[in-house]
Amino acid sequence: MNYSYKYPKPSVTVDCVVFGLDDAQKLKILLIQRGISPYEGKWALPGGFIKLDESIEAAAVRELKEETGIDRVFLEQLYTFGEVNRDPRDRIITIAYYALINIGEYTIQARTDARNAEWFSAKELPDLAFDHQKILGVAKQRLKGKLRYQPIGFELLPTKFTLTQLQKLYETVLEQKLDKRNFRNKILKMKLLVDIEEMQAGVSHRPAKLYQFDKNRYKELEQAGFNFEI
Amino acid sequence: MNYSYKYPKPSVTVDCVVFGLDDAQKLKILLIQRGISPYEGKWALPGGFIKLDESIEAAAVRELKEETGIDRVFLEQLYTFGEVNRDPRDRIITIAYYALINIGEYTIQARTDARNAEWFSAKELPDLAFDHQKILGVAKQRLKGKLRYQPIGFELLPTKFTLTQLQKLYETVLEQKLDKRNFRNKILKMKLLVDIEEMQAGVSHRPAKLYQFDKNRYKELEQAGFNFEI
Repeated sequence: MNYSYKYPKPSVTVDCVVFGLDDAQKLKILLIQRGISPYEGKWALPGGFIKLDESIEAAAVRELKEETGIDRVFLEQLYTFGEVNRDPRDRIITIAYYALINIGEYTIQARTDARNAEWFSAKELPDLAFDHQKILGVAKQRLKGKLRYQPIGFELLPTKFTLTQLQKLYETVLEQKLDKRNFRNKILKMKLLVDIEEMQAGVSHRPAKLYQFDKNRYKELEQAGFNFEI
Repeated sequence: MNYSYKYPKPSVTVDCVVFGLDDAQKLKILLIQRGISPYEGKWALPGGFIKLDESIEAAAVRELKEETGIDRVFLEQLYTFGEVNRDPRDRIITIAYYALINIGEYTIQARTDARNAEWFSAKELPDLAFDHQKILGVAKQRLKGKLRYQPIGFELLPTKFTLTQLQKLYETVLEQKLDKRNFRNKILKMKLLVDIEEMQAGVSHRPAKLYQFDKNRYKELEQAGFNFEI
């Protein structure tokens, strides 16, 4: 059966916005340098054409792995961009995905259509190909909105962390300073943190308390519709 | 230039989930009865194929108007669905949009590929074509999430409304009963409502106070990152 033959078809791609936090809780973006035309030599988001026999999400996972070597990342769908002239080649609609990962846990390796793959500081990005600057802007907004209402950041910290590390992570993603006392009150009130009665090691002056994230408690609260807003 | 000729292309459609509130603040869904194969005679979300010279959003607006007569609605992008076998015809990726409107302000008229167009109670829906049941489920979740954090419902009420009407709207969309006192406290604390010092007309026993929504105040608060959570 082919009912749709009469409609000219657009091309469809996926693009991946991968945010990374480094050891100092600084926000970075994973970019590739295009090895092919158009925009050859320009930096861009990793991505490429969808195959007919794979789901959109599978295409995103595949392209990310092919172009950057990054695998086993939970990619969440961001938004679909389809302005008529967004790509010089053809009418191309792109479905963008995003993820937030801990940079230290992954090794980058550029392959296939990517000449290079690198982490860039979110504050010092090169010019990007296509409408990727716009896609990145939408992804940053989404990430902020999400962290504000869901404690997504915990998985990016070491298993044991201090409240200062956690606050730094929030400040990085939200791009704003948070009041220390207010932040601590809100976070502790959620009762998502387990005080493991250990102190930070290797710090001679006023070592801080270490905490762990209570995932089961998080799941319970989430199901109960709890407000995690920071 | 045509760099992408070598990639077989999927077809791309749009689908629209239009939620409506009737005068009694009951939630309804706008469906069309398919006039063409596949699923001829089945109920489905309004939608259709994207043209190469229109943006995705323009396609959604056009298809909604063509199939249901509904125009001048703010459609927001919901999610893109692209499972390999979601459509029996071909590999078809669909970009879903959603809107929440006041039923009384619109006239429905089925045209083009739609044999009929009708409002169905959200609680008594027919079997839907394709994966439209799934799309609808995602839209309901999004609408709930949105109302919980943004006062989107005000524009659906008459210019002057009672707190009971407003609470009913929230209860309908959130699909849960809300505590009256708690709801009123939260809503009044937002200072989004102007007490116009008028009482409900046509009610002999204990008429309620009438309020208006303060849009300017809403815009100010929104820019300041105010928490509108209910």
